[in-house]
Amino acid sequence: MDDIPPPPPLIDDLVEKNKDVHEKLLKNSETASSQYGVNIFIVGLFLMFAVYLKIMGLTESDRLMFLVILMLIQVVWMIFYICVSDRKKWAPTEKDGHAGARWLRCGIVLFAITTLVMHALKLGYFVGYSECIPIIEGIYPVTHIVHTFFQVYFLWCHSKDVIKSFKTLERFGLIHSVFTNLLLWASAVATESDHQLEEHMERLKSLGFTNLTLTYPTDIAHLECNCSTNLCKDFKKGIYYIYPFYIEYQILASAMLYVLWKNIGNKTSHLHHKNKLNFDGVYVGCFLGLIVMAATIGIVAIYLLNIGRSKTNSEAALSIYYFYSITVLGLMSIGSLLGLVIYKTEKTSVFKEKSPAVKLDAELLVGSSIGSWIISWGSILAIIFAEHHPTYTWYNLPYSILVIVEKYIQNLFIIAYINHTPQNNLKASHIEIPIETGQVSVPAESTDFTTSKGIEVQQQASMQNQQSKKDKTHRPPADRKNNNRKLVLKNLTVLLFLCNLSLWIPPAFGCRPQYDNGLEATVFGIMPWIVLIDVALPFSIFYRMHSTYSLFDVFCKI
Amino acid sequence: MDDIPPPPPLIDDLVEKNKDVHEKLLKNSETASSQYGVNIFIVGLFLMFAVYLKIMGLTESDRLMFLVILMLIQVVWMIFYICVSDRKKWAPTEKDGHAGARWLRCGIVLFAITTLVMHALKLGYFVGYSECIPIIEGIYPVTHIVHTFFQVYFLWCHSKDVIKSFKTLERFGLIHSVFTNLLLWASAVATESDHQLEEHMERLKSLGFTNLTLTYPTDIAHLECNCSTNLCKDFKKGIYYIYPFYIEYQILASAMLYVLWKNIGNKTSHLHHKNKLNFDGVYVGCFLGLIVMAATIGIVAIYLLNIGRSKTNSEAALSIYYFYSITVLGLMSIGSLLGLVIYKTEKTSVFKEKSPAVKLDAELLVGSSIGSWIISWGSILAIIFAEHHPTYTWYNLPYSILVIVEKYIQNLFIIAYINHTPQNNLKASHIEIPIETGQVSVPAESTDFTTSKGIEVQQQASMQNQQSKKDKTHRPPADRKNNNRKLVLKNLTVLLFLCNLSLWIPPAFGCRPQYDNGLEATVFGIMPWIVLIDVALPFSIFYRMHSTYSLFDVFCKI
Repeated sequence: MDDIPPPPPLIDDLVEKNKDVHEKLLKNSETASSQYGVNIFIVGLFLMFAVYLKIMGLTESDRLMFLVILMLIQVVWMIFYICVSDRKKWAPTEKDGHAGARWLRCGIVLFAITTLVMHALKLGYFVGYSECIPIIEGIYPVTHIVHTFFQVYFLWCHSKDVIKSFKTLERFGLIHSVFTNLLLWASAVATESDHQLEEHMERLKSLGFTNLTLTYPTDIAHLECNCSTNLCKDFKKGIYYIYPFYIEYQILASAMLYVLWKNIGNKTSHLHHKNKLNFDGVYVGCFLGLIVMAATIGIVAIYLLNIGRSKTNSEAALSIYYFYSITVLGLMSIGSLLGLVIYKTEKTSVFKEKSPAVKLDAELLVGSSIGSWIISWGSILAIIFAEHHPTYTWYNLPYSILVIVEKYIQNLFIIAYINHTPQNNLKASHIEIPIETGQVSVPAESTDFTTSKGIEVQQQASMQNQQSKKDKTHRPPADRKNNNRKLVLKNLTVLLFLCNLSLWIPPAFGCRPQYDNGLEATVFGIMPWIVLIDVALPFSIFYRMHSTYSLFDVFCKI
Repeated sequence: MDDIPPPPPLIDDLVEKNKDVHEKLLKNSETASSQYGVNIFIVGLFLMFAVYLKIMGLTESDRLMFLVILMLIQVVWMIFYICVSDRKKWAPTEKDGHAGARWLRCGIVLFAITTLVMHALKLGYFVGYSECIPIIEGIYPVTHIVHTFFQVYFLWCHSKDVIKSFKTLERFGLIHSVFTNLLLWASAVATESDHQLEEHMERLKSLGFTNLTLTYPTDIAHLECNCSTNLCKDFKKGIYYIYPFYIEYQILASAMLYVLWKNIGNKTSHLHHKNKLNFDGVYVGCFLGLIVMAATIGIVAIYLLNIGRSKTNSEAALSIYYFYSITVLGLMSIGSLLGLVIYKTEKTSVFKEKSPAVKLDAELLVGSSIGSWIISWGSILAIIFAEHHPTYTWYNLPYSILVIVEKYIQNLFIIAYINHTPQNNLKASHIEIPIETGQVSVPAESTDFTTSKGIEVQQQASMQNQQSKKDKTHRPPADRKNNNRKLVLKNLTVLLFLCNLSLWIPPAFGCRPQYDNGLEATVFGIMPWIVLIDVALPFSIFYRMHSTYSLFDVFCKI
């Protein structure tokens, strides 16, 4: 019975022990590093709020100093990591195919360029006012430029790395980088909200909400000073146009670094799926999507030109914006629903992805949706309980409901498909062909004679070869059905991709009806509502960008 | 070569497809239900804040109505689930051994009893004022009592269930339950903070911070009314003493329901580890821990009797509290560090747990630590930047630093050991004995003769038998060393267990130096600091309770 002796327990056990000691130290450094990161983040946020609320005598310089120190630590760590991994080039490094896809890396390079431009402008602004603003406002953009260069190089070359050997330093360095980027993101969001608020106060006046205006402190220090280059105002204007891109850059970099951190010591290695982009037959989706995008740009222009001019102009701008949004969101909801129905009826198998990158994608989608869900529920409750209802506020109700519904369905659609791998799709179509032509190997036929097996394999290969030739001229119905399904899905994905990209534009460039319509601010009070919008809207904007990425991923996988 | 034919592709594939379709629907309903839950939670929080900030004309009654509806939906779902699973009793249901441990279920029953008492008191209060307060304030406690009964029964009988069959209704029901309990928790926390604030305003006056008092609206409606039973005031007082337990009940119930939700469709089945509680030799830990506990109760009494009496009394109370806390936290830090050192030097293997219950435990520990980290960093910054430093505020600095450090180390210690299974421990000690007596089976010896193998096994068995008899009289040094190590760990765990339980008492029963010392409130402004404490302190209190549970778990596993 037991003719094979059991493996010697001692050696086996020692190997196992060694592995386990390794694993247990790994688990330990994971907790330790995440706790370190959280504490850095808390201190950074405290400093930010202290400066923002002007307490504790802290100034903007202190906060910038803190960020500069964090960035420099990260740069030193990145240089160390790059040097060490360059020295170990002979060793086969494991890669996670899901992390750091090429288009993601290209995206971060593009955003990084805008970041560099922004900090160059900041430097120009500093030069103009160099006499009266502290030196740190010049050091900060320089450090940021250096930081951006190193970070982009690091993410470009190493974003797929799966760090296998036990490296506490790597864990701490990565989590430090994640939270440094998150702090830079939070700081950018706060500055941007501040700036938006100034504009919106003007707009609210035009709608007759004079009681809602806040006395807003402008930076008086700079007003007393003369700009030596005469370009300072233009620089400042330029900076604010780039902010939306800068915000996206920070959040993207954080996400990529987080995936790297999560991948440390990961056991499941993932194959790299080379997905060829194929735009055949997606004309309908492209066409509709481009119409939506063109309309969006038009609407944003109309909105920005009319809002805050006069009561009639402002009301018209809001009404047009709501009508447009209701149409687009309705279209997207129907599209996502259709995609979901196709998914449910599809009989192809699904492979559950276990990469942290895929898991994070899904969590970020649902997590960032919460931002706009909060705003929308606020709007709905405000409309229900408001005392006065100007006409345009009624359009706010279907709009807010559709925002909730659209994100709900779209998330289901995207998450369903990013858990999908193309291999299964291919396998499924390969198997369906023999069924159609009757070439199924039944269990009884394939018993234990080896030579006929070899012949069978040859036969199958040649048949399949013929089959694939035949396919190009005359496809069997099941295959054709499958292809039609794919084509519909691809069109839907392209449409959703362009719609999400379009919907990113209005809030990122200053169309914020949640501020401008004045209804919610009247019901909730101006300060609570502003705080809520300032916290929730960045997530809502991030959602649109992130869903665009995810939909690109879905498109590649279909 | 390939004499075994490949399995027939069609049937295998169909089975796989079926499994995959199942899995893909599962994934879908996971996202869908979590999105539903988040939206319910947002609406509930909005109602809570609207009532709290007295906006939109919403009253307490509307909010209670909403909670009553949520609770009733949950009760209906639980009845449905209990009935269905009772009918299926013949089927072998899979259980997760990590979820719903017996002591956890006992804990929830104890807390549930306090909840029942509290709602009975609320009902009594309602009866007293029934003429002038709305009927919903009577319906609410009744519903809550019914809800508590069903929920405790449900958690007692079903908290280990691993729901295997695809059940969208189960997912939605469970997530509805999770968020209902979270809303009840948030509501309890808000009421408790409200009540604490009233008391602290009085205390701040005694310390000379007269400029910090807020005009606080007391419930005037009840004042105009006469209590028909003459017991209303006592009822109200009693209710506030029970609140800390009620808050713990809600958060515990949420956590257990969340684990159930996470376990739906889980594949890895876990054995139930029957851990016998063995208190042999933990006298030192028990003794020290009980001293700490007695001291805590004494300090809480001193604090509550002195704070707010006069400036001298208040300052003395604060100083004593800080000294006591610094001592206890220092002791705990050293204890955790020692435990961690033992863990790192130990050579026993570790088994990485994959149960959602264990993962959630670790995440809750780190997550709830964030609450007190935020408060402590706030205190540290306030001390650094404050203009005036009364003597007692200096004690706040080491105290705050120790709060951060202690949680950091203790989390590492607990998380290290809850990822440990006792089986490995047992195995390791079994293997070490033969090494000592030289009985190692080397690879060369154990080749392919079967009969000698059988003899060897018999020999080994008899040797081991003798060995275990010998062990009881004379243990080999390695085993003894291992036992000593275990004994030290057990003592440490018991000490930490009792210390954490002790530290839960002061904040839960009204010792809140973060409010009472007035330093942070002066630096940050009273409103921002109160909001921060109100949000962060519940997590800090929850941390102490949760670490107690986790340490109990660790004790059982050692």
